[in-house]
Amino acid sequence: MKDTNHVELIARSPFLSWLGLEILVSEPDLVEARASWRPEWVANRQFGQTQGGILAALIDFAADFALYHSLGRLVPTIDMRVDYHRMAVKGDLYVIGKVVKQGRQFSVCEASVFDESKKLLASGRGSYYTAPME
Amino acid sequence: MKDTNHVELIARSPFLSWLGLEILVSEPDLVEARASWRPEWVANRQFGQTQGGILAALIDFAADFALYHSLGRLVPTIDMRVDYHRMAVKGDLYVIGKVVKQGRQFSVCEASVFDESKKLLASGRGSYYTAPME
Amino acid sequence: MKDTNHVELIARSPFLSWLGLEILVSEPDLVEARASWRPEWVANRQFGQTQGGILAALIDFAADFALYHSLGRLVPTIDMRVDYHRMAVKGDLYVIGKVVKQGRQFSVCEASVFDESKKLLASGRGSYYTAPME
Amino acid sequence: MKDTNHVELIARSPFLSWLGLEILVSEPDLVEARASWRPEWVANRQFGQTQGGILAALIDFAADFALYHSLGRLVPTIDMRVDYHRMAVKGDLYVIGKVVKQGRQFSVCEASVFDESKKLLASGRGSYYTAPME
Repeated sequence: MKDTNHVELIARSPFLSWLGLEILVSEPDLVEARASWRPEWVANRQFGQTQGGILAALIDFAADFALYHSLGRLVPTIDMRVDYHRMAVKGDLYVIGKVVKQGRQFSVCEASVFDESKKLLASGRGSYYTAPME
Repeated sequence: MKDTNHVELIARSPFLSWLGLEILVSEPDLVEARASWRPEWVANRQFGQTQGGILAALIDFAADFALYHSLGRLVPTIDMRVDYHRMAVKGDLYVIGKVVKQGRQFSVCEASVFDESKKLLASGRGSYYTAPME
Repeated sequence: MKDTNHVELIARSPFLSWLGLEILVSEPDLVEARASWRPEWVANRQFGQTQGGILAALIDFAADFALYHSLGRLVPTIDMRVDYHRMAVKGDLYVIGKVVKQGRQFSVCEASVFDESKKLLASGRGSYYTAPME
Repeated sequence: MKDTNHVELIARSPFLSWLGLEILVSEPDLVEARASWRPEWVANRQFGQTQGGILAALIDFAADFALYHSLGRLVPTIDMRVDYHRMAVKGDLYVIGKVVKQGRQFSVCEASVFDESKKLLASGRGSYYTAPME
């Protein structure tokens, strides 16, 4: 899905643009996106692996974006947890975000990051502040 | 402290270099570092705030680096938690990492991110895999 | 399923017995169990709600037990996260545990706690130390 | 400190009473408490260690109670993280809770559990919902 709204949302964000994010699927309580590998992601030239901070950023983005279909905006992250499962080698990354529980004041979402061969690299969850804006 | 060793460690890492990291203090179980603001950190042009993923990356780096004085290497992150306390506006960031408990197989460290006026922006902790390399 | 092995596992543990745990389903990477409400679970006589620590204990148990089918033993918890979604009122609790990623050194599992009407009360995940015992 | 207020707070809670909690110190942003060992805490008769869920409950209690001096009430836990550092053997437990950042809508606190010889057994942090009650 190339929703103009999503393209603009990412274009407005220098960081999300830098991650090369493209929304592939956006449904109620679900998002799938791809991030385009760039050389600055590399943690250590010797191994070429992608830094964990990039995976954390993708998990936070997708968990937050899972609420976008319902809320129409990205919301503040209260806190998040990330588990690292496998070393991420050079290549684009795919991230899937889902809503665990949408509440009035705050909501919990989860997300998983995969490599191009669909291997699970990292997963996590976050609490988001979803109270209506004053 | 401008330890050549630390400068080289960061120079070997495209991502840590991109964060503009400079180690200010490295003592047993403690590290202080500064990261140089760059325009790609901005989450949303309208507000200019730094993306949470950058703060998460700094917390992971400093928590991991708190073990560097003792281990002589950065170690794999098992998992981490980040709490966001205040919106991070444009500017360099400071991060302090400390060892909570160093174990044989895994260790727990914590870190806090501050702005230039020493306001606490985010804090967190991570589990690190510190078993000797085979 | 009333597997003698599971009944004995719980009987050996004063705490799991105190929680009144009964294993309902145990499959590879999955467990379902019920815990029998007891008056000591109440956080505050005024509201009668079950203390969050009980839900945390159930999440840790079910996340750990999700590995039992594969490992044949309960393993040490490295760390865990619990999200509280709804106040738990008086009544038995149901918990479902699943393996997120089983690794050689450590594994990540998740679990959710439900009330008798299948409402989600809490959910979370933990890292478990699954290296072979020396 | 044997503050009548604290004694009543614990007496009103069957679970906190069951934990045998006694508040030793309660200052702004800080609490120290002791929990009295009981045989139901044992995870496994063979080793006699205290179940992780008990340590999690103590961390949640002390992190929450660190706000009590300021707020005059215990508040809902949004989520929490617990790291396990050492096996807890038979004996009373001590827990120290501190405020990391008190906010208007939610606040972050941390806590550590020690054994009778002051060895660190577990530590963690939680997010608490501190908005004024409607």
